[in-house]
This record gives sequence, structure tokens and C-alpha cells, in this order.
Amino acid sequence: MDIDGIICGNRRALARAITLVESARTDHRKDAQSLMAALPKDRQALRIGLSGTPGVGKSTFIESFGLHLTGAGLRVAVLAVDPSSARSGGSILGDKTRMEQLSRDPNAFIRPSPSQSQLGGVARRTREVVQLCEAAGFDVVLIETVGVGQSETMVAEISDIFALLMAPAGGDELQGVKRGIMEIADLIVVNKADGDLKAAATRTCADYAGALRLLRKRAGDGPQFPKAMMVSALTGTGLEHVWTDIQTLAQYRKDTGFWATRRADQLQNWFDEELHFGLLSILQKDPQMVARVAQARADIAANRATPPQAAASILANLLGNAD
Amino acid sequence: MDIDGIICGNRRALARAITLVESARTDHRKDAQSLMAALPKDRQALRIGLSGTPGVGKSTFIESFGLHLTGAGLRVAVLAVDPSSARSGGSILGDKTRMEQLSRDPNAFIRPSPSQSQLGGVARRTREVVQLCEAAGFDVVLIETVGVGQSETMVAEISDIFALLMAPAGGDELQGVKRGIMEIADLIVVNKADGDLKAAATRTCADYAGALRLLRKRAGDGPQFPKAMMVSALTGTGLEHVWTDIQTLAQYRKDTGFWATRRADQLQNWFDEELHFGLLSILQKDPQMVARVAQARADIAANRATPPQAAASILANLLGNAD
Repeated sequence: MDIDGIICGNRRALARAITLVESARTDHRKDAQSLMAALPKDRQALRIGLSGTPGVGKSTFIESFGLHLTGAGLRVAVLAVDPSSARSGGSILGDKTRMEQLSRDPNAFIRPSPSQSQLGGVARRTREVVQLCEAAGFDVVLIETVGVGQSETMVAEISDIFALLMAPAGGDELQGVKRGIMEIADLIVVNKADGDLKAAATRTCADYAGALRLLRKRAGDGPQFPKAMMVSALTGTGLEHVWTDIQTLAQYRKDTGFWATRRADQLQNWFDEELHFGLLSILQKDPQMVARVAQARADIAANRATPPQAAASILANLLGNAD
Repeated sequence: MDIDGIICGNRRALARAITLVESARTDHRKDAQSLMAALPKDRQALRIGLSGTPGVGKSTFIESFGLHLTGAGLRVAVLAVDPSSARSGGSILGDKTRMEQLSRDPNAFIRPSPSQSQLGGVARRTREVVQLCEAAGFDVVLIETVGVGQSETMVAEISDIFALLMAPAGGDELQGVKRGIMEIADLIVVNKADGDLKAAATRTCADYAGALRLLRKRAGDGPQFPKAMMVSALTGTGLEHVWTDIQTLAQYRKDTGFWATRRADQLQNWFDEELHFGLLSILQKDPQMVARVAQARADIAANRATPPQAAASILANLLGNAD
């Protein structure tokens, strides 16, 4: 692999490296591990996680926000995380026409979601791709997800700052926040604050601001966060404030040491996850073990075994093999 | 073990069985598994999870609510879950004078939190104790937690219905809901709606009702839930409504099949947890593996290894032993 090419910001070298780390082939995995180990670790991008359900104008927001950043001289990578893309037969970002201008910008790099259905696999890949983008000198890495299953939590776990994009809603239609999401958001950005929807956006923003005030402060929140704000991705209004706020929060976290602690914690969590999935894959790879686990589940469902009994028998079998 | 004694509702037989399942000794664990396997599975209690931070009047609430239920002819078991009790040197429920009247009620059974510091251990024990109480014919099992770390999530996972007890607050002091909790609550009960605090309780209740409306409906929520309500545990006002609402929600979940599906899912989740902790304990029991994992963490922190590299090396070692 062309490590120098990646470091110099060569887009084809970066794209090839990403293809390598996305591969599940055993020999590719080995090469990918050598590549990742050889990367310089001294470059850091601002990692922004972004989620929003279909219809909130996420593509328009990323296009406008990305162009705002490249316009300020920054290099921006956009990564999509969509564990369901394998099922839906294509990536949400596969069609770059979604962000036509940004995809032509030499200072932007857009990478669609890989077609892996396992969230664990997507998480590992995305962590490595983020590190590749950092080594390639990007200033901002935007990690986008539509929020299928646990993907927001996963994206928040690998980001420095997590933003949730919302659409304006009428008073009775405000049941749009998926449970658990408000808890992990640093910013709730109400989009479409323009034209007929401006008044609704103002009300929605106030509602979310009120709801955020009900939540206990987390470490790293600082005095003003989490906060709700309004933008119009269409007209560009408010994008400047989103960026200023993200920078303010990032600086606060750097100044207080929270940033470094969190990055260190994220590395240890990654290790825990690799161990966890590695151990589980022992149970999932061997056909005999797979059959035993399926039988155990059926026994539990039929009250023929308690869960601890069933688990103990699986583990004894595993350790019996180990002796 | 005296299974017949447990089934007949003999309190000493139940207490002895609980002591057995709480023991970590290998021979006790074996006996506990035989006992659990032999229990009848046809008795179901309504499992109510209850959380609230210190100062919200949780003991007073449980005492009043428990007496309300026993007064209606029901048998009530109260279990405490407090993973921190090992550290704080005693159970939050160790002192039964906290609920003086209820603890003397022949139709109530109060069991303090076991002194185990591992949430995984507490979860397994509590699941088994709940099943023992069901076999002993209790109608309601109230599982209480102060909400240290992830204990609310754990309690919600082993309950049929989860209630969060809150105190009234002034407009600016409403940052009391721990992140992630509002998402798992079926009922938010604002206590102390009496005397000087009544107006504040009314406002607080309205605030939480508003915040709950912002959340997307979950499967099993039905038309009226989650909801916020007020009680005074001191005067007893509102306790009747809490019980009626819990019954309504339970009936809705039974009618829609959600109850049975959720109980079945909970059993499978329990199995997954046992497998997970069992696999991890392989890494935590062998002193050589413990040392290797510690070294791996240090290498990751010092950028001497990537998390996937470190995990792969640990797993290769484990599988190497297995061959």
C-alpha cells in the first residue's frame, strides 16, 4: 500500500486503502492491519457524527455545510454508515448526485457506505477509514448515518461531536426523536427554517431546547451544550453558527482534557468490541457450535432449559474442546 | 432445597433459596441451577421496575404503594438492585426500618440488594430471584434501583413495566433526568405532590409529559403510554391511579401479545448475557490471559498496537490454547 500517497493526500491512494480495509478476505485483513499499524498517529481531524431520518434534508445539509467548510479552506471527508445498505441493495450515498457540487470539490472526499450488514463490521471499517482520512490530512471527517438500529450510538461512539438533524413539525407531530438519541446529541439542528416552515422550525427548535434542558449534564458538555438551533440548508442561513458552535465545543473539550480522554477511551472500547466480536465469532464459525447454540435457544424458548444452564453447557463444550 | 416450601409460599424456604442463588460458590451455583430448572414455570407475577435518585421519596413510595397492593389482597415482593452496595458497605434496603410497616406485612416480602459489585452478577441473581418469587406465588414483584451506572437499563430489561420516580423541581432545576432513562420509562411518577410542593409537582409533571410527547412511540406503548403523573406517597393521593395505569398497560401488552414476546425475548437476552459473561470470564480467570489483556491495553494507549491487532493477538492465543 502507498502510505506516502495517502499522507500526501492522494485521493486514489486513499480510495484504494479504504477498499482494502473494507475487504473481509483474510489476506486483505492482514494487509489492512499492517497498513493501519504503519499509519502516522499524529494527525487529528474533527470527527463529526451526523444523523437524521429520511426527509430532514440531510444530503442538502451535508452539501451546504461541506461547501461552507471547503470555502473556508478546510478539507472535508464525508463517510456514510448504513448497516442496512446490504439489504436495500445499495448505499445511501452510492449516488453522488445527491451532493453534486460537493462531490466535485477537490477539497472534499465522499465515500459511500460499504455493503456489510453487520454493525460490528461496519463499526470496525468506519473506525479504520476515519483514521485513514486523518492520516490523509483531512480537517473534518463527517460521519453520516440514517439511524437504522443502533447505528447512531455507534457513530456517536466514534465521533468527537454528534449532531442530530431534525425537520420542523407541528405541535402534535413531535414524536420524531428516536429514543436514546436526544441523550447522545451535542447539537440538535432543526433544518428547513425557511419560507413557510420558518415559524414551525422556530417552535420545534424551542421544544427541543426545552427537552434538552430536562437532561442531566454529561462530562464534556460545558456551559452551553447540548443545544438546539435552526438552519436552512437551502439558503445557507445558520450554517456559520453550526460550525462556530462545533468549534467552540471542540475547543472546550480540548481545553478541559475531555477530548484526549474520550479518544483514549474510544480506543479501549474498540479493543473491547474486537474481543467481544472475536469471541462470538468462535461460536458463529464452527457449524457444530452454531447448531448447538440454535438448539440451546429452542430449549430456552420451550422451557426445557434455563438460560444459565444452556449457556453453561455451550461454554463447557467450548472449553472441553480447549482442553 | 425445599421446592414445595417455596411453592406453598413459605418465606423461610424462599429466603434460603435466594441465599443459594446469590452465592458465587461453584457447588452452590450447581445446586442453584438444579433448583431453577426444577421450578414450575406456569406462575407469572407482574414485574415492575422502579428507579429514582436519592431524595425523591422512593422508600416512602414503595411503603405506601406496597401497602396499597397488600390492602387489595395482593402478595408483593420488593427486591433491591444496587451494584454499588458492595462499595458503599451495605444494601440500600439493608435497613428494613426504611419500610417499617410493609416489612411487617405478612403479604409482603422485602429482600435487600446482594453485595456483588458486578452488574452482570447482580442481573443474573435478580433474574433468578424474580423467578423464585413468581414460583412462590407473588402477584407483584417490585424491582427497585437507585440508578447507579447502567442499573436502570438492566432493571428495565428484566421488568414488564418500568416506572421512574421524580421529585418536583423549579423551572430552572429540571436537569434531573439521567440520560437514557426517559427513553425506557413507561411511567414517570412525580412524587411529593402535597403541601407547598404541589404547584411545583404539577408544573414538573406537565414538563415531563411534554418531553415524553417528543419521543417516538415504541412497540407495546399503546395509546396512552408513556405517561407522566403525580402522587403523594405521604398522603396516598394518586397511588390508586398508578396501580390502575400499570394494570391497564399490562393488560394492553397481554392482549396485543407484546407481553409474551417480550418475556421470550428477555429469556434469549439472558442467554446472550450468560454467554457473553462466560466468554469474558475465560479471559478474566486465567492469570496469564489477564496479564496479556492488560499489556494489550497499555500497548493501545501508547500507540504501540491498534485495537484490532491487540485483540487478534489475544484471540489467537486463546485459540492456540484451544488446539
